[in-house]
Amino acid sequence: MPEPDVTPCDASEIARWDESADVVVVGFGAAGAAAAFSAAGAGARVLVAERAGGPGGAAALAEGIVYLGGGTPVQKACGFEDSLDDMYRYMMAACGPDPDEAKIARYCEESLGHFDWLVARGVPFDPSFCAETSMAPTGTEGLVYSGGEDAYPFNEIARPAPRGHLAKTPRSTGWLLMRHLADAATAAGAAVTSDTRVDRLVLEDGRVVGVQAQRFGTTVSLQARRGVVLTAGGFVFNDDMLRRHCPPLVRGTFKVGTEGDDGRAIRMAQAIGAAVRNMYASEVSLPITPPRTLIHGILVNGRGQRFINEDTYMGRVGQSALYEQDGEVYLVVDERSYDVNWMGLAASWVCETPAELEREIGLPEGSLQATLELYNRHARQGGDPVFHKGASWVRPLVPPLGAIDLRIGPAPYAPFTLGGLETSVDGEVRDLAGHAIPGLYAAGRTTAGVCSFGYASGLSIGDSTVFGRLAGAGAASASC
Amino acid sequence: MPEPDVTPCDASEIARWDESADVVVVGFGAAGAAAAFSAAGAGARVLVAERAGGPGGAAALAEGIVYLGGGTPVQKACGFEDSLDDMYRYMMAACGPDPDEAKIARYCEESLGHFDWLVARGVPFDPSFCAETSMAPTGTEGLVYSGGEDAYPFNEIARPAPRGHLAKTPRSTGWLLMRHLADAATAAGAAVTSDTRVDRLVLEDGRVVGVQAQRFGTTVSLQARRGVVLTAGGFVFNDDMLRRHCPPLVRGTFKVGTEGDDGRAIRMAQAIGAAVRNMYASEVSLPITPPRTLIHGILVNGRGQRFINEDTYMGRVGQSALYEQDGEVYLVVDERSYDVNWMGLAASWVCETPAELEREIGLPEGSLQATLELYNRHARQGGDPVFHKGASWVRPLVPPLGAIDLRIGPAPYAPFTLGGLETSVDGEVRDLAGHAIPGLYAAGRTTAGVCSFGYASGLSIGDSTVFGRLAGAGAASASC
Repeated sequence: MPEPDVTPCDASEIARWDESADVVVVGFGAAGAAAAFSAAGAGARVLVAERAGGPGGAAALAEGIVYLGGGTPVQKACGFEDSLDDMYRYMMAACGPDPDEAKIARYCEESLGHFDWLVARGVPFDPSFCAETSMAPTGTEGLVYSGGEDAYPFNEIARPAPRGHLAKTPRSTGWLLMRHLADAATAAGAAVTSDTRVDRLVLEDGRVVGVQAQRFGTTVSLQARRGVVLTAGGFVFNDDMLRRHCPPLVRGTFKVGTEGDDGRAIRMAQAIGAAVRNMYASEVSLPITPPRTLIHGILVNGRGQRFINEDTYMGRVGQSALYEQDGEVYLVVDERSYDVNWMGLAASWVCETPAELEREIGLPEGSLQATLELYNRHARQGGDPVFHKGASWVRPLVPPLGAIDLRIGPAPYAPFTLGGLETSVDGEVRDLAGHAIPGLYAAGRTTAGVCSFGYASGLSIGDSTVFGRLAGAGAASASC
Repeated sequence: MPEPDVTPCDASEIARWDESADVVVVGFGAAGAAAAFSAAGAGARVLVAERAGGPGGAAALAEGIVYLGGGTPVQKACGFEDSLDDMYRYMMAACGPDPDEAKIARYCEESLGHFDWLVARGVPFDPSFCAETSMAPTGTEGLVYSGGEDAYPFNEIARPAPRGHLAKTPRSTGWLLMRHLADAATAAGAAVTSDTRVDRLVLEDGRVVGVQAQRFGTTVSLQARRGVVLTAGGFVFNDDMLRRHCPPLVRGTFKVGTEGDDGRAIRMAQAIGAAVRNMYASEVSLPITPPRTLIHGILVNGRGQRFINEDTYMGRVGQSALYEQDGEVYLVVDERSYDVNWMGLAASWVCETPAELEREIGLPEGSLQATLELYNRHARQGGDPVFHKGASWVRPLVPPLGAIDLRIGPAPYAPFTLGGLETSVDGEVRDLAGHAIPGLYAAGRTTAGVCSFGYASGLSIGDSTVFGRLAGAGAASASC
């Protein structure tokens, strides 16, 4: 199916600019707010063009976790020691394969300063830790483990520390974060035009000098004297793009983002020769816990085999479930470990014996029995030498047994895309030869960020705001 | 690392054309030869620009299998019934997920005519069948099963038939195929300029009107009055592109292709706004057999678990091994099933008991034992309900046991890329809005073909030659 046209427009075709600014920011989500704030703070006249009726983007709908470490005030208040070196080692391992080392190094360098920047923007953090979840707590706690730092294999690579920071409000906290960031951008002087869908870049002698957009049924031309910053989200709401680049995600049932995440900004830049990378990568959340007692159970696939340590980050479980296990996963628990989980997923089967459970689920005869036998034998010895689940979560599973149905459908698979435009650490969009495209910047999920495939909660808003700030500053200081 | 520049050149910058043709074909491999032949046959003046010193490309180094079915003369002579409908159903299942239905339908429609076309070009086929291998036989047999058609799951989806056709010469047959195709192209009137590396497309008012190339240290401009056909291979020899789009392949140890497979043609087209797809997809051959007796063994991963039916196509084994099993795979056999395989891979370990073998390999304690116990129990019942290996390959494995080391390193992982430019069935290159870019055509591994991820041997040369012919004809009939 043809996609909307994104052919660039030549400046000579613009009879007059409807509005002019030094920096035009496309999209008013987390990355856009950060870019607009820093560009305005650098003295640039900033215009933010937002497709929806107001600010927020995907971040406002999100859990709102920001991944920061190296000894933030919240970490310290909660009694956790952390170093930038441990954070770097964790990220290099968890964000791979082969993540963007320059971005990860810069991200870690910015970490402590970025925490202060968020606080200075008015974002409140409760200096308390929640052990029960790797997502937004039901309370107002400001810190969680959000990437399996304390589980295999990462606990052997870097000293574990919780780095998921949350604004002080119960449950999903993204709206509060975004309220402060959006307010900060406008308070810094950024002008905003809402209900304005940017469709094309405007070029003059190979330099991006503005955009064309649709506003209330009219085409408007917005001049960007110094630069355009694309912060318009990813492409999880564009099934055609998913089929081209990331077919497993077509089956995702609970897409994380807004309908504006249709990849248009990525395609607009590609149309002028921008490079993309990691287009196959995504975060896929399959948040089985809380309660964490469920981690005592074992995850098995459609062949009755385990495939991962159950105490790892639930995004890693979701990635494997969707990409490698064909979306067929079950959590097998016993009475001691069982509970209805936070999503309301209860055991679909409860049986007196493993053989019966296996038959009820429809797993190959003997497969789950063999898996349980091996798991229980190791558990009696106090360990899990096959998948390295932490010893505190390992104990024999004793019948009667139950199984929670985590197949696509019964369970939500919640993906968003991680691939996008290739950018420098300063937000310059690169062309296919690796050169910066004059006048074009980007940040957030319109870009390929710190994650090449692996992910931890908080890295998307973290990456969006850290590199959004840098992109905004870069655009503001670009020579006209 | 910056990539070579592929910025397009405007026609106004060309002082004079060094050579002129109706159709310029970039690359003289299988797709290029087919495109040049059909363009010349349609009356166009054709110039083929080849980067190497002569024709051949990756196809000349390849096994040379061409995937064709529906009842070819070779299939009939060997006593196999086949239908285009079965071929279509197989391909829709094996080339997925979500393969290009229009291309597969067209490919099947062209199948019988394409066989005749190859014969008419002088390619000889021995009408005999080799059961022992899914690759090029050691003899001259012209037909093999090359995609696991006779194994689970495809044997339940479509009536199995061997569709791998090979030119009549022992072992790898690609060179013979290419000799005939290259001769046919020049005999039809196509001119060839060798040692000519095309670097950029030349544009005039949004239409591709030629290319610029390097020839013996000089920049030459080649005019294409009707169209340019990009048939310059994939990108398996470009590690930077692999990291951007397909990181698992960086670990491939035996890259299938020529050093010209650096993705330059894909990038040249992207630089003028062409769309790409399936950039994460690849064929990864891990050709364990012959001898097929080895299929009586079981493949296990680093956790001692089986992960696939051992009688399936060895490209499916390789894809899973590299993408999902982290390149850690072992083939466990007993005395009856053991032999040194065709690559010379012998058992690295031989042990009296499963426990000892497991320890020697370094698998988690009990893991291989549990796998063997379950496999043998099912085998005694005559089946493999877990992975559905065909009953004729299933029998209990009796100690002493051996294991062939199929990890990356000891075993070759032989990949090539399947992603590339998005084209119509007629070879038109599509822009990001799905529209044909005037004057630009492509075929072969420069494009995303019939395979979105899954693969069968013979589909790359098959796709290259079928759609190469269509692209050449399309370019020849384009209005200037």
